[in-house]
Amino acid sequence: IMEFEESGIGEECGVFGCVAAGEWPTQLEVAQVLTLGLVALQHRGQESAGIVTSDGASTPTYTSHKGMGLVSSAFPPEALLKLRYGNLGICHTRYSTTGFSELQNCQPFVVDTLHGKIAVAHNGELVNSRALRKKVMRHGVGLSTGSDSELITQLLALTPPMEELDTPDWVARIKNLMTETPTSYSLLVMFKDVIYAVRDPYGNRPLSIGRVVPISKLHSTGAGEEDTEGWVVSSESCSFQSIGAKYYREVLPGEIVQISKHGVQSLSVVPRPEGDLPAFCIFEYVYFARPDSIFEGQMVYTVRQRCGRQLAIEAPTDVDVVSTVPESATPAALGYAQQSGLPYMEVLCKNRYVGRTFIQPNTRLRQLGVAKKFGVLTDNFAGKRVVLIDDSIVRGNTISPIIKLLREAGATEVHIRVASPPIKFPCYMGINIPTKEELIANKPQFKDIAGYIGADSVKYLTVEGLVSAVQEGIASVQEKEDNMSSNKVGHCTACLTGKYPVELEW
Amino acid sequence: IMEFEESGIGEECGVFGCVAAGEWPTQLEVAQVLTLGLVALQHRGQESAGIVTSDGASTPTYTSHKGMGLVSSAFPPEALLKLRYGNLGICHTRYSTTGFSELQNCQPFVVDTLHGKIAVAHNGELVNSRALRKKVMRHGVGLSTGSDSELITQLLALTPPMEELDTPDWVARIKNLMTETPTSYSLLVMFKDVIYAVRDPYGNRPLSIGRVVPISKLHSTGAGEEDTEGWVVSSESCSFQSIGAKYYREVLPGEIVQISKHGVQSLSVVPRPEGDLPAFCIFEYVYFARPDSIFEGQMVYTVRQRCGRQLAIEAPTDVDVVSTVPESATPAALGYAQQSGLPYMEVLCKNRYVGRTFIQPNTRLRQLGVAKKFGVLTDNFAGKRVVLIDDSIVRGNTISPIIKLLREAGATEVHIRVASPPIKFPCYMGINIPTKEELIANKPQFKDIAGYIGADSVKYLTVEGLVSAVQEGIASVQEKEDNMSSNKVGHCTACLTGKYPVELEW
Amino acid sequence: IMEFEESGIGEECGVFGCVAAGEWPTQLEVAQVLTLGLVALQHRGQESAGIVTSDGASTPTYTSHKGMGLVSSAFPPEALLKLRYGNLGICHTRYSTTGFSELQNCQPFVVDTLHGKIAVAHNGELVNSRALRKKVMRHGVGLSTGSDSELITQLLALTPPMEELDTPDWVARIKNLMTETPTSYSLLVMFKDVIYAVRDPYGNRPLSIGRVVPISKLHSTGAGEEDTEGWVVSSESCSFQSIGAKYYREVLPGEIVQISKHGVQSLSVVPRPEGDLPAFCIFEYVYFARPDSIFEGQMVYTVRQRCGRQLAIEAPTDVDVVSTVPESATPAALGYAQQSGLPYMEVLCKNRYVGRTFIQPNTRLRQLGVAKKFGVLTDNFAGKRVVLIDDSIVRGNTISPIIKLLREAGATEVHIRVASPPIKFPCYMGINIPTKEELIANKPQFKDIAGYIGADSVKYLTVEGLVSAVQEGIASVQEKEDNMSSNKVGHCTACLTGKYPVELEW
Amino acid sequence: IMEFEESGIGEECGVFGCVAAGEWPTQLEVAQVLTLGLVALQHRGQESAGIVTSDGASTPTYTSHKGMGLVSSAFPPEALLKLRYGNLGICHTRYSTTGFSELQNCQPFVVDTLHGKIAVAHNGELVNSRALRKKVMRHGVGLSTGSDSELITQLLALTPPMEELDTPDWVARIKNLMTETPTSYSLLVMFKDVIYAVRDPYGNRPLSIGRVVPISKLHSTGAGEEDTEGWVVSSESCSFQSIGAKYYREVLPGEIVQISKHGVQSLSVVPRPEGDLPAFCIFEYVYFARPDSIFEGQMVYTVRQRCGRQLAIEAPTDVDVVSTVPESATPAALGYAQQSGLPYMEVLCKNRYVGRTFIQPNTRLRQLGVAKKFGVLTDNFAGKRVVLIDDSIVRGNTISPIIKLLREAGATEVHIRVASPPIKFPCYMGINIPTKEELIANKPQFKDIAGYIGADSVKYLTVEGLVSAVQEGIASVQEKEDNMSSNKVGHCTACLTGKYPVELEW
Repeated sequence: IMEFEESGIGEECGVFGCVAAGEWPTQLEVAQVLTLGLVALQHRGQESAGIVTSDGASTPTYTSHKGMGLVSSAFPPEALLKLRYGNLGICHTRYSTTGFSELQNCQPFVVDTLHGKIAVAHNGELVNSRALRKKVMRHGVGLSTGSDSELITQLLALTPPMEELDTPDWVARIKNLMTETPTSYSLLVMFKDVIYAVRDPYGNRPLSIGRVVPISKLHSTGAGEEDTEGWVVSSESCSFQSIGAKYYREVLPGEIVQISKHGVQSLSVVPRPEGDLPAFCIFEYVYFARPDSIFEGQMVYTVRQRCGRQLAIEAPTDVDVVSTVPESATPAALGYAQQSGLPYMEVLCKNRYVGRTFIQPNTRLRQLGVAKKFGVLTDNFAGKRVVLIDDSIVRGNTISPIIKLLREAGATEVHIRVASPPIKFPCYMGINIPTKEELIANKPQFKDIAGYIGADSVKYLTVEGLVSAVQEGIASVQEKEDNMSSNKVGHCTACLTGKYPVELEW
Repeated sequence: IMEFEESGIGEECGVFGCVAAGEWPTQLEVAQVLTLGLVALQHRGQESAGIVTSDGASTPTYTSHKGMGLVSSAFPPEALLKLRYGNLGICHTRYSTTGFSELQNCQPFVVDTLHGKIAVAHNGELVNSRALRKKVMRHGVGLSTGSDSELITQLLALTPPMEELDTPDWVARIKNLMTETPTSYSLLVMFKDVIYAVRDPYGNRPLSIGRVVPISKLHSTGAGEEDTEGWVVSSESCSFQSIGAKYYREVLPGEIVQISKHGVQSLSVVPRPEGDLPAFCIFEYVYFARPDSIFEGQMVYTVRQRCGRQLAIEAPTDVDVVSTVPESATPAALGYAQQSGLPYMEVLCKNRYVGRTFIQPNTRLRQLGVAKKFGVLTDNFAGKRVVLIDDSIVRGNTISPIIKLLREAGATEVHIRVASPPIKFPCYMGINIPTKEELIANKPQFKDIAGYIGADSVKYLTVEGLVSAVQEGIASVQEKEDNMSSNKVGHCTACLTGKYPVELEW
Repeated sequence: IMEFEESGIGEECGVFGCVAAGEWPTQLEVAQVLTLGLVALQHRGQESAGIVTSDGASTPTYTSHKGMGLVSSAFPPEALLKLRYGNLGICHTRYSTTGFSELQNCQPFVVDTLHGKIAVAHNGELVNSRALRKKVMRHGVGLSTGSDSELITQLLALTPPMEELDTPDWVARIKNLMTETPTSYSLLVMFKDVIYAVRDPYGNRPLSIGRVVPISKLHSTGAGEEDTEGWVVSSESCSFQSIGAKYYREVLPGEIVQISKHGVQSLSVVPRPEGDLPAFCIFEYVYFARPDSIFEGQMVYTVRQRCGRQLAIEAPTDVDVVSTVPESATPAALGYAQQSGLPYMEVLCKNRYVGRTFIQPNTRLRQLGVAKKFGVLTDNFAGKRVVLIDDSIVRGNTISPIIKLLREAGATEVHIRVASPPIKFPCYMGINIPTKEELIANKPQFKDIAGYIGADSVKYLTVEGLVSAVQEGIASVQEKEDNMSSNKVGHCTACLTGKYPVELEW
Repeated sequence: IMEFEESGIGEECGVFGCVAAGEWPTQLEVAQVLTLGLVALQHRGQESAGIVTSDGASTPTYTSHKGMGLVSSAFPPEALLKLRYGNLGICHTRYSTTGFSELQNCQPFVVDTLHGKIAVAHNGELVNSRALRKKVMRHGVGLSTGSDSELITQLLALTPPMEELDTPDWVARIKNLMTETPTSYSLLVMFKDVIYAVRDPYGNRPLSIGRVVPISKLHSTGAGEEDTEGWVVSSESCSFQSIGAKYYREVLPGEIVQISKHGVQSLSVVPRPEGDLPAFCIFEYVYFARPDSIFEGQMVYTVRQRCGRQLAIEAPTDVDVVSTVPESATPAALGYAQQSGLPYMEVLCKNRYVGRTFIQPNTRLRQLGVAKKFGVLTDNFAGKRVVLIDDSIVRGNTISPIIKLLREAGATEVHIRVASPPIKFPCYMGINIPTKEELIANKPQFKDIAGYIGADSVKYLTVEGLVSAVQEGIASVQEKEDNMSSNKVGHCTACLTGKYPVELEW
């Protein structure tokens, strides 16, 4: 269970872009596609949202709107109205790690340069942002926000040489940027009529491309290239279906891809230092991504199910019922049940309306805690022994009241199995993790975690088990598909092992 | 699938009340309990919400707040602040059937009478409201809203004789009201320091009582009567857990129960006409209620699971995978899987953030329809035959695009099994059902429903199957518990059969 | 100075109605006329506003909107949109005397009766409302608000006999109402296609009728009866100009006037008890009304100027400059200057943006008080002796810091002359006056009021002086106009003299 | 009459700053002083408002809040709460000339530089902003807004040499800036614990300094230097009184003044090119400034009154009554009356509630135009000849309906006298003036302006008359005060004469 409000673990953001294909203006309503794309990525950030569209003219008109909160409240009808004339655009949804949650920090960031306006949307966190900020400011640039996105934008603006040409060489500038900062970033850079989609050399954050097809041909398998209505690029492929696009491919680690109305073109792949493996964040699989997203050729749901199976092998239990903490742990629970042969039953149901009710603190209701979020399906487990599968335990304060609820309702035993290893280290690459001291795995009580949270037993998936459950699927994909086989496989497990993909320069 | 926005089927409302026990003021924060109670009943109405609290003094001070929308937006912090001095209170959440969605129509309704203020919260719909309105107006009363709640309140105010006594006989007045209108209503009437909880003689709408216990004793089984911190009364028992209360009992059909700080007392049971059975709405089991609520001694989730088992017996399929349209059909799907021995797999995941985004109509995105609400878990069913369990099909326009999604993603066959019979008739007792013409079961296409919605086959649960799945559990409960055995068993199946529990006076 | 926020003196409300003339629908946009009418009466109440329109059909559709705050915030564009199909309507702006400032209490009040819906807007306060409430409730009517408007509406609904006829006799009912309660009320009652405009027998609150003329003929004097586009009725005639109407006549004390598309018709004049004079509120002249309104044939501005002249006669000063506390006292100050022959100069200018800034209390800025509202025009009075004319002094805490400001800026003497007598008694007829204890005139310090507020001298207009300044103009009007000469002249001076026009039944 | 909505003439903005004196934290609540300061300058910009405070520490914490609309809506209580820990701060209120009215463009602008954050608030408009933008961007700086304030901030940040010292030489940088751009700007630059107050060498925009004194000593003349609680700096001195400060002195053209807790210190005076006179905007006197502000030693009200006297000399009339278009023309009207010996009377009263009511266009009510804003005081002028004094006529479409109103109400003649010369040229220094084509003075109809607007005669003040009315007072001040006598006198009359103080580089 890693509900945002309980554990404080959160993704920083999601990025999304869209370019209408063919002659402009086309029938594809870019502003609507962008909005739906944002909604589909809302799980990656609920704090603010922003869209910038361009008409793609040689002297382009950019239109932007940003707002606090969910997309639904940040984008009232009048905002969509003013964005509607775009032929391409990029957008961003944000979950702040820094505590500065002001409209000013919202992305995409737009600046006017000698060559015209550029817009940048960024998912990730620059490991050397302090040094970069100083460098930029020493050049005489004032930075108006603390966001990496503004920093990237100004770096792109000032990269020497300051050519005063008709067509500035943005690709050279992006490459230059990539030599300044190794990770982590998935970037969308919009300039006039082009979106550059960029993934850092370690591929730490995801980025996928999709092809928009006519609705009429969506449900037929034979929609050919000639039917392309536009291109989308997104942190996660789950957003493609919701706007009627088909999965096309991932942006590769280090790759710069140009997306325009003329199609998708790979411009360059910036290499990692000799010997370094890719370092795609393994927690995207474990927790952050939506289960229907595809990374490295495999569906996230399937990986989670495989984690559950692996967990059943590593940490079996003698119980009557396997169940889940809804909803994120359900694939792992079903995997555990399948592997173990134990019956799967639901023991908790969620009250989907429990959100921000303005109950004052210091009351009995606060003591009830998580109880008000879950209904207990007593008859399914009263008098039985239960193993509850969770996807991760961060602070340990959420699972504890759930165990109490189950016992009170008649469970004779409650065992906890966690489908990921304990989190022990901070992330400096875009994930908001509590301080080391707050992590249950670093507390003295972790020695007797079962006693601490009130379970009959607690066991975690091993790091090796997790890595093999993740990489097993990639191997089978690579056998099938040639074009990915050249890519080495590797994942960032820093928060579990303390081994960071690059040296930290803080 | 009966998503509100798609099908237009909706409960009218939920009622909730709370009385702090012992000497007043107690530690129990009534306004907070009421708010949490409303949130737990939010699935019964999202249009508006209202709370009225009383300090319970002999010349009582009533405080009220009403607001449009979800509880979370209708009750900002300052609203809770002004309500906090209550020792008892009632509240209401509303889903309008009439189209008048103005603050003025929000319940609870409060009026000043010769004897002081009374407050009324009502779930249900008076079958003879037109005649009653005329009767009241002929007496010279102007009605300021079209709500049944105001009508009931004025009926209670004017019931003769207009005794000018210190203590008016509200029980006599409530009985009088019950002779004027047979059904349907579950009522809470607050007067000074007492809440009267009333259920119509047919017991058409639910109403349950719970006991608030100290948090410290919540998880111990030994909390005795002497530990009672207060009483709550609610449309559904699912709300009890979320505020730290334990299920006590249902209000019986026709019963008037008095709830005060001195406890719970049954004052009277008004009988039905000779020969009439109770008529508890069977759709509360099928769709409306939360799965963790208890009616007639049985958990709703269990009844739904039993419906799924019965459906597997009545309408088996030769497929590879059993699945569900999340989330409401999941218990039936699991029941179907258990009975049939077929494997249960998830094929769809919900995007919980898709709500009210202000996308203009007439676009490709609208054509996408339901696709933007569900992610498809392709790997779980590609190349397989799927049976999808749904809880009901009202208009038939929601299931159709889902079937397309599954086929497009590789399902070789898609069969639909519906865990309830076809809805054919309107409800006049509190449920918002589309007009007869809009119901798929009354359309010519129903003859070839499979072809119409694009499924390989479609089958429904029979009315007999549903009734037996519901009543089977009650029988077993009645064997165990003496106090309910005197109650005859009966359910309203009017929307399925056209047999209404009382003659309709429209 | 009687700024609302400082002194707490305030009018209760303003009423306004409009009927489009000729065949319906006409070109006259009734909803817009009503809104502008409300804005023109905004000085009579800023707490809430409401409009009810009717299409005037035999089975009429009423549309209503109410909102808190100024008309501009209470009536957003979508509210005006929903009201636009009205052929007639009434509206109301409110300043609460009771402290219940909830939307529920907003007028107009609409109720459904045996004969259809009626809507009522009321300016005034029923002197016997307690007894009337009890009477209504004894009949079995529950009252949902504490407003006199609801009470009046229910009285009209229940008035026996409860004829079940096609056309109920509303005039008989209104007359009946007028026998139940002597004062104070100016009422608009809308039923289907008619507005009844009613003034209580004492004429305590104002009510005037205007004729809407085509814009093209507005500035020509020759617009005849045949050019009438509609009729308006308003608490004050100042609203007529802002919607392009011409003053027609006042509703007389005790008169019931019917306004419909067929024109204006006097139906009845209910007499006062033998010997009683009319009792039009004299404070409408002194302070409440807008200076461009006409009462009893004379312009309010002129009466105020006459008060200033009278004050110069009664209380001359030996100073260099006459000035005003802007803006309400300016006519009196100019009158004083004209009569005395002293030069008139501005010494203060208002900061029109000082309104509701959310400065927390207990600060130096609060101590500054009125200073932040006024700029001082030093050069106009530095080194001079000033007499400052104020229209009334209620609590005495507003004028005091102004005097300090002037002295600090160099005034050598500051004398205060008040163009009305001291307020000493509460009003029970619709004006919100501080409690007796709070009135400066009832405090011990009043003996040395000059010392208390820091002035060199303070003098008030006498009651006789005020009455003569008011009535002098009426006399000259009556000489000219025959139709008013039958009316006796009389004014309510209760707040100054304690002589109430009717016996108080509290 | 130059109502914003009618004529489109508007000031761009107002700036205000405050530093608490003595040891920090002091009792002086800087955030509240800033807010009140903004309110007092609200007439200079109603579109947005922003405040930035600093705790003044060596590593300072800056807190900022910006909002759209009036100060009262842009600064809700929670905004003031978050600002309350400041020991100094600057703020800004804005009226956009560019059409970009987004939060992002709001001032003050804050950027992080190598030496820490600086905040800038700017009133004026850089005549060479295009060239400066290009220069900054060529250096590699991306500009995120179109505002001059960001441009100034980045210019200050990049000014070479990029000394990496503990204490950067901001004064050198400000001087550098002043060599880059001659006019027009009044600037506040906050860095850590200091505010630099800067006025361009031409002194085109105003800037004054005030001294905050204890409330207890405010009304005594003897508050000495030792009683200083803080310092304020403001576009207009009218703001001083509203926060309890005393006028101290003006910032001189070209002067850089440092304001800190240690007091006020003049650091430098940057000279104009040889032979150039100062060019303080003469329209600050005519229209923009509040009448109680002091510029160049004289009160604005007095200057306006003098314009009225001069107008009476230049353009006398043979009428019965002198009156004003309230409120801004009143001082001129009183001056005209005094000089001419004619009686002054009010003929119009303003409805202060007419603001943004959401009436749809294309209706009779729109035709009514200005009529709904003014009430007519008929009795004061019916049957008489009136001369109406206006402060300026820009488009001529506002005065015309007023003349109609007066004639309709009985004025036998209506003459117009305008207390300023016709506006004929655009302003590039911070004032929003309609395009040349829209100005009535440039239209063919201007030849017969009286006929065009429906007046009996129209006359304007001459440029010479205006200049002499303005400068006459300065001369008398300079005689008295030595410290100003060194200053040459000169005013910008570009909008009247087309003679701009510097060459325009557009």
